[in-house]
Amino acid sequence: MHLELTADEVLTTTRAVRKRLDLDKPVEPEVIRECTDIALQGPTGGNTQGWRFLVVYNADKRAALAELYRRGWARYKQAPGSVFDLSDREAPGPSRQQFVRVARSADYLAEHLERVPVHVIPCIKSRVEGMAANSAALASVYGSILPATWSFMLAARNRGLGTCWTTVHLLYEQEAAELLGIPYEEVTQVALIPTAYTLGTDFKAAQRRPLDDILYTDSWG
Amino acid sequence: MHLELTADEVLTTTRAVRKRLDLDKPVEPEVIRECTDIALQGPTGGNTQGWRFLVVYNADKRAALAELYRRGWARYKQAPGSVFDLSDREAPGPSRQQFVRVARSADYLAEHLERVPVHVIPCIKSRVEGMAANSAALASVYGSILPATWSFMLAARNRGLGTCWTTVHLLYEQEAAELLGIPYEEVTQVALIPTAYTLGTDFKAAQRRPLDDILYTDSWG
Repeated sequence: MHLELTADEVLTTTRAVRKRLDLDKPVEPEVIRECTDIALQGPTGGNTQGWRFLVVYNADKRAALAELYRRGWARYKQAPGSVFDLSDREAPGPSRQQFVRVARSADYLAEHLERVPVHVIPCIKSRVEGMAANSAALASVYGSILPATWSFMLAARNRGLGTCWTTVHLLYEQEAAELLGIPYEEVTQVALIPTAYTLGTDFKAAQRRPLDDILYTDSWG
Repeated sequence: MHLELTADEVLTTTRAVRKRLDLDKPVEPEVIRECTDIALQGPTGGNTQGWRFLVVYNADKRAALAELYRRGWARYKQAPGSVFDLSDREAPGPSRQQFVRVARSADYLAEHLERVPVHVIPCIKSRVEGMAANSAALASVYGSILPATWSFMLAARNRGLGTCWTTVHLLYEQEAAELLGIPYEEVTQVALIPTAYTLGTDFKAAQRRPLDDILYTDSWG
């Protein structure tokens, strides 16, 4: 199902889809290949192309990833200072209500993750912890995989698929690496992208903070 | 100039433009606003929207950034193990010839950077060095600004603008922060995106490593 959207449509309607995923409809590997092929047109530092996309269809492995994800999500949600710790929030920018909605939606995704037919784990050949004090190196490494990851999600949207950018399984990245045979010392996982056909395709742009709050000219503020 | 490209066209033809930039044609702030507005539809962890886009039009500041950039580029190129150290390259994947071409093109950009009419510096409210040993936190922070940065570049392409993802000025990030009044301790710069109208708009997809080299199913390799 190719939606044939315009560039601006895809860029403004690729939402974090957590609940409107069709958990019963299989996703053809051919469509995932198309999206990944498009993703590879993204940039990498020095054109090194150290990216790898690990696509998990296997049900047992998805169940195991979902378990790690739920542990990560529980830990993340309860961490002091978490945006999802709503006990004393003064709602800077997005309202408290919006956080509650996102948190509920994220709970739903966590509960149903093993039923999402495809889990995509983008990886980069580099181990980031060693780059501790070097923001230039970190920016170059993440900049060599995250644009392609986003391209994958945009291409997926154009094919009727929904995705959601998640990172909480990385709290147990080493366990995930063992599960999937990823050489942890040489390769960093950067996200887990649940991918499924969406229930309906009529997504709209999100409400965001006003442009003038975040767009600065010539100097900060 | 709105090119009205399809999503797949934009995703496959947004190249790193270093030489085909029109250095004499001003870029209207209104177009930059449009691209940034579209960028804000990208994801952020927990919808925190800690992103800021600092857009530099001022010629003196662009000249100062270009100077930092040239220092960074010289250091990066000569670093041991740099992909641009071509003295002993066995050309894994992309050929030596391709690296030479990219290096020359990057030299050109470095030499002309102050003449590129707009420098966009995407920032995220977080200081990454403190997250040293936590790849989950790093992925979340970079994942809250790099997708939007790439959206900016894709939206720019759809408007006849060329961009290039660069990070070498970050080797002197603190100096750049001082120049632009960015609160370095609280905010991380993640890139510098030179932005200008392109000379012609007929960009084609890049040649990349074969899909089967980088797309793995159910386990690594």
